[in-house]
Amino acid sequence: MRVAILGTGLIGSSLGLRLRRDAAKTKVEVIGYDRYPDVAQQARKVGAVDSTAHTPQQAVEGADLIILATPLLAIRKMLEEIAPVVGPDAVIIDTGSTKADVLRWVDELLPAHEGFVGAHPMAGKTQTGPEAADADLFEGARWVIVPTTRTSERATNAALWLAETVGAKSMFMDASEHDAYVAAISHMPMLAATALFAMERASDAWPELSLLAAGGFRDTTRLAGTDPAMAFDIAVTNREHTIHWLNRYIGALIDLRERIADPELEEVLFRQLAETSFEYSAFINGKVGREEPTDTQAGAAAAFSFQDFLAGGWMREKLSEVTGDSERRLEEQGRRSRERREV
Amino acid sequence: MRVAILGTGLIGSSLGLRLRRDAAKTKVEVIGYDRYPDVAQQARKVGAVDSTAHTPQQAVEGADLIILATPLLAIRKMLEEIAPVVGPDAVIIDTGSTKADVLRWVDELLPAHEGFVGAHPMAGKTQTGPEAADADLFEGARWVIVPTTRTSERATNAALWLAETVGAKSMFMDASEHDAYVAAISHMPMLAATALFAMERASDAWPELSLLAAGGFRDTTRLAGTDPAMAFDIAVTNREHTIHWLNRYIGALIDLRERIADPELEEVLFRQLAETSFEYSAFINGKVGREEPTDTQAGAAAAFSFQDFLAGGWMREKLSEVTGDSERRLEEQGRRSRERREV
Repeated sequence: MRVAILGTGLIGSSLGLRLRRDAAKTKVEVIGYDRYPDVAQQARKVGAVDSTAHTPQQAVEGADLIILATPLLAIRKMLEEIAPVVGPDAVIIDTGSTKADVLRWVDELLPAHEGFVGAHPMAGKTQTGPEAADADLFEGARWVIVPTTRTSERATNAALWLAETVGAKSMFMDASEHDAYVAAISHMPMLAATALFAMERASDAWPELSLLAAGGFRDTTRLAGTDPAMAFDIAVTNREHTIHWLNRYIGALIDLRERIADPELEEVLFRQLAETSFEYSAFINGKVGREEPTDTQAGAAAAFSFQDFLAGGWMREKLSEVTGDSERRLEEQGRRSRERREV
Repeated sequence: MRVAILGTGLIGSSLGLRLRRDAAKTKVEVIGYDRYPDVAQQARKVGAVDSTAHTPQQAVEGADLIILATPLLAIRKMLEEIAPVVGPDAVIIDTGSTKADVLRWVDELLPAHEGFVGAHPMAGKTQTGPEAADADLFEGARWVIVPTTRTSERATNAALWLAETVGAKSMFMDASEHDAYVAAISHMPMLAATALFAMERASDAWPELSLLAAGGFRDTTRLAGTDPAMAFDIAVTNREHTIHWLNRYIGALIDLRERIADPELEEVLFRQLAETSFEYSAFINGKVGREEPTDTQAGAAAAFSFQDFLAGGWMREKLSEVTGDSERRLEEQGRRSRERREV
């Protein structure tokens, strides 16, 4: 099978590496094209492609499977370039992080082709380029498949085959559903990290702050290191959804600020912190997806688990301290602000 | 030397482990006390203390160095408990995450003692308790020393010795400076992560979102797993500073939202994303603290480095695409919203 990978950056090269690693089994030959010839050469050097092509047209000639792994906004140009030469039986899969715009471009530029199917492998790292490629990048990752209204069964099966071959777990979504979800769970964290790091970096105190920064700060802001071209393409192809989630996040921060500012809300604040920590721990320990309690008892247990947590041992003690000490802290705070006024 | 550790959780036990590892050199004997006897027993079991005491008074009897490593709000109670029995030559070091309140409690409860010095080891992990203790937890970490107006030179030296012994890098600050800085670089990331995770968790789409969550989301929200008692104590002892930074963060998110919402600001958006990514990469590669350019040329180079980055190679190309394509996207967007109105 002949596979053309257009765009041999981190994602394209990681796919190529994995496909070629199992080439004896999959009988795959990989041709790589990149807008920057040295990037394509580098992909060949790390073993991600068998050979390189000088043009997108040359790369897709006779290809059974065409993978569009360029930056998101460049997919449109790739589709323009290959539209005149792509075979009617070729399967075309993109790997972009948003889908509504991509499907619109496909409608516009390949209006009759039945081989296109969108894909979004939910994996990555901050480093870019073929040097960072990793055959195991997609192992265990989610791989969202977004068919169009014209996608043939053969093309869908090819997308499933590709996900399975690279070790990813597929799920189907439509484009608008996909874009709404990833805005929340992927783009929002990136924007939260970017805004946080940019704010700290812009502070006059940054020289001191940067010395004090520990692992927590580095983890929280890691996504601020996202390739800016990728971040930009995501923002402008998913404006409405990202703005929706930015608004919700701003609202959540305003609520949290109120709970911290008002000493009378100390108990509410503590309950929120405790519940968030409890739920985070459940999430990180694998509680994901939709729970389907098998009987009423299990349902009740699942529903009341945070209450159980709060009612047991030291959490209960802390809660009663929070409530009990609150009054003393209110008094102290009142005394301090009176003192300040007197000074 | 006799060291009493009051509070044998993660921090107390990690200090004990390290001190006892080098005990042949440091000639240290460590007595542990914890409000929960089983936690103190566990600390002894993992080797963090030589023996345990039943009361704080018993623990500090004859101690040369007293380390207060309890949760922040419990430090006040510990000071009350030990005040009547603590020797005039004992050095007392706390490890709390905020300092202004602690120093106020010391003024109130140990008004004449010259042995108190505040310390804040900027290290930690999400796990808590002696089971998570690690003798290398402080290796290479910042260790802020906050003396009071009465702190003796001997006490300051003891704080420096402790930092050095556990492998940390000391720096001096006063309490209000410390609390302002850590609000920005430590508490703000924790609150950002907490608000983000709580918002996502509360969404009706959480079952789907949690399935799609990848490493980026987990890293950005990792601090949402912070021990809720610790998060609470920090928030209520550092209200004003955390609110200040929450306000700045909300402002930064509002600016970012505007840049995403307005297609005419695409170039501004791209420049911000590029600069943030560039600066993040410099930070993560060790560019911290205050730069002191040795000559004018070096100063100029440092000042213009982001401009150089933006002017070179593919970043320049991307910038010109952003500017060039902006018009086409504006047209597309206009057409789409006209279409929507017609439907």
